[in-house]
Amino acid sequence: MAHEEVILLDFWPSMYGMRVRVALAEKGIKYEYKEQNLADKSPILLEMNPIFKKIPVLIHNGKPICESLNVVQYIDEVWKDKVTFLPSDLYEKYQALFWADYVEKVFDSGRKLWMEKGGEQQTRKDNYIDSLRMLEGILGDKPYFGGGKIGFLDIAFIGICSWFYTYEKFGEFSTEIEAPKIIAWVKMCMKMESVSKSVAEPLKVYDFALQIRKHYGLE
Amino acid sequence: MAHEEVILLDFWPSMYGMRVRVALAEKGIKYEYKEQNLADKSPILLEMNPIFKKIPVLIHNGKPICESLNVVQYIDEVWKDKVTFLPSDLYEKYQALFWADYVEKVFDSGRKLWMEKGGEQQTRKDNYIDSLRMLEGILGDKPYFGGGKIGFLDIAFIGICSWFYTYEKFGEFSTEIEAPKIIAWVKMCMKMESVSKSVAEPLKVYDFALQIRKHYGLE
Repeated sequence: MAHEEVILLDFWPSMYGMRVRVALAEKGIKYEYKEQNLADKSPILLEMNPIFKKIPVLIHNGKPICESLNVVQYIDEVWKDKVTFLPSDLYEKYQALFWADYVEKVFDSGRKLWMEKGGEQQTRKDNYIDSLRMLEGILGDKPYFGGGKIGFLDIAFIGICSWFYTYEKFGEFSTEIEAPKIIAWVKMCMKMESVSKSVAEPLKVYDFALQIRKHYGLE
Repeated sequence: MAHEEVILLDFWPSMYGMRVRVALAEKGIKYEYKEQNLADKSPILLEMNPIFKKIPVLIHNGKPICESLNVVQYIDEVWKDKVTFLPSDLYEKYQALFWADYVEKVFDSGRKLWMEKGGEQQTRKDNYIDSLRMLEGILGDKPYFGGGKIGFLDIAFIGICSWFYTYEKFGEFSTEIEAPKIIAWVKMCMKMESVSKSVAEPLKVYDFALQIRKHYGLE
């Protein structure tokens, strides 16, 4: 494909955006990164995702693809001559898609650890750790969810590593103690530039979380 | 494929289940339908969908596929020698997947019309009708969302026709007046046995909704 134009509308701490960054890096696709200000949405974001007005949006030759898991699947199908993310076996493929949807639960329960005020933090912590351990069980003793190499579920989930520090600070626990295999998996993934250069710095994410809490009066 | 064993765990008023029923009928796949009692979940449901414990579950040669949109996509890929649901053009394909996800919003806002108590019913009604009109805009003047034939988005959305009567009774409006093109589309779909034999009877659904409200003390 000669005149590919690939633009990514994204926001640096977003785990959803990180999925697309890793996918593009894994496929070796050159693209223009356009950081978005979600507090004051740009005309291009409103034009390209008028329904949800959310990042990430991949704009491929002028046409927008929205919703991060759709975007990763799209990338996998369009640039199929490179590495592949989804297994060719259909049962395995739909298992990966199922668990990628499940990641939403982990992200949601993680967000509640730092974005909610009052109520039972212990319950939120238990819910989060349970959801994390569910995926730890799926990983088992494999180096990656994709088996011997990074796959769709790895890409769907890896952005969480940028948020572990924030979750730990607010939840007062150690991910390494609660889900050691997940930490070993993160370390494996971080050896790859496609991951290490795509994910956000945990301390910077923590600062961002503190600012957001202040903004919403959660201090 | 010679010894196909296809089982569907389902519950008759479920719009999610209807997606799978229509998809199987469209592909002409013979299957065993196993009605589930969601108030007292069966060992087979708990075994086949231990994570969400929800219907529909398609069990294909002993292996479960969960989450209705995944199931419809799986059916489309496995039995690809028959009619196809998703367009071969990748941009069109991911547009259909995007809007199929959007249907969730319509289903959710519809459920709130009959399942919530107190608060502002007018707001709920406006939200529901807005979401319905969004899809009406996508349909435009085509007979089906899939264009000249039933496609993925049609299958994802058609089950709503079983619930229109219930929404209208609780919301006190006419779908025909609020979204006439959607009603015309339902009429087109209902001409096909794959649809008419798969969706539930609106008055029966309404009775079911009344029972559920009673059960939850919403009367």
